[in-house]
Amino acid sequence: MGRWAPDARGRLERAALELYGERGFECTTVAEIAERAGLTERTFFRHFADKREVLFSGGAALQEFLVGMVDAAPSSLAPIEVLTAVLGSAADDIFEERRGFVRQRQAIIDANAELQERELIKLASLASAMADALRRRGVGDPAASLAAEAGIAVFKIAFEEWVQGTTEQSLSEGIRACVDELRHVTGRPRPTARR
Amino acid sequence: MGRWAPDARGRLERAALELYGERGFECTTVAEIAERAGLTERTFFRHFADKREVLFSGGAALQEFLVGMVDAAPSSLAPIEVLTAVLGSAADDIFEERRGFVRQRQAIIDANAELQERELIKLASLASAMADALRRRGVGDPAASLAAEAGIAVFKIAFEEWVQGTTEQSLSEGIRACVDELRHVTGRPRPTARR
Repeated sequence: MGRWAPDARGRLERAALELYGERGFECTTVAEIAERAGLTERTFFRHFADKREVLFSGGAALQEFLVGMVDAAPSSLAPIEVLTAVLGSAADDIFEERRGFVRQRQAIIDANAELQERELIKLASLASAMADALRRRGVGDPAASLAAEAGIAVFKIAFEEWVQGTTEQSLSEGIRACVDELRHVTGRPRPTARR
Repeated sequence: MGRWAPDARGRLERAALELYGERGFECTTVAEIAERAGLTERTFFRHFADKREVLFSGGAALQEFLVGMVDAAPSSLAPIEVLTAVLGSAADDIFEERRGFVRQRQAIIDANAELQERELIKLASLASAMADALRRRGVGDPAASLAAEAGIAVFKIAFEEWVQGTTEQSLSEGIRACVDELRHVTGRPRPTARR
């Protein structure tokens, strides 16, 4: 294996996911990941801080993408519309294309309590970044926090359904359906009772 | 100090909170907590698994209280009404009376990233328990998950305002105001625009 390694990062990522799936996250070492990818440990650490980072490094890029989209959204849109559109774009442009990777990653996370906690913390940080972006659009509090928390809750629930493959819907369709359901759930009691 | 120690748990709790506030959570040892409380380390470990547990042991009791209330709520109530009522009762019956303790605890958590993560995980587990309780009432999915996530988001945001003391409102008033704001935020865009 030469020193020049095209797509080293992608190869390390694929090797790591294979090994986490085969042996479990805890039982896999960085040395094994590097070996499977045909690279050195040193190359691994040039791309990732540790073996957990392989699973979570995409989170920062996702957050940046979402924040950029919220900042660029037309000012006429209400907060929940902005979030629905932005999360739908992330679904179409990022998640659908990587469905295989995303599902493989999710199975690994589902098998490990510490990784599940890390995922929760990433989602909370995403909600907080979305609330900040809404505040930059002039949305007050608590509306900014509530819309952001609601948007991330919608994403989380639609994502779970989509990643489990129990639905024919695309992720962005699932997000829109969940926003409608949230409207219904939080709707005034009277009109609901009259149905 | 005799072997019979009335209110040992409460004394340990108060001593721990004082020390975490004075020295920081990381720099406080169980030996110091026991000494401040005039008790032994052995007594500490009869009540708490470790020094973090002092801050989080109330979470299980809170969850039990909330789940019991959801199970007992009249079947005519819509999911979001059940959660608003139940969280409001917890606010009035548990949080208002312990405001001093709750604020002291929150200042300690706010100063420590690991404790903040633990708090997030407790809230996620609470949302999951609420969703299960709603399912037992016959609420389907994703409505059960969405209502539970929305309810916990409302609680979290109202709690932050209340614990910071930036509002004259009681916590249960803050919860009701946040539910109304969430209705507004998730409302259909057209009627909102017409205002």
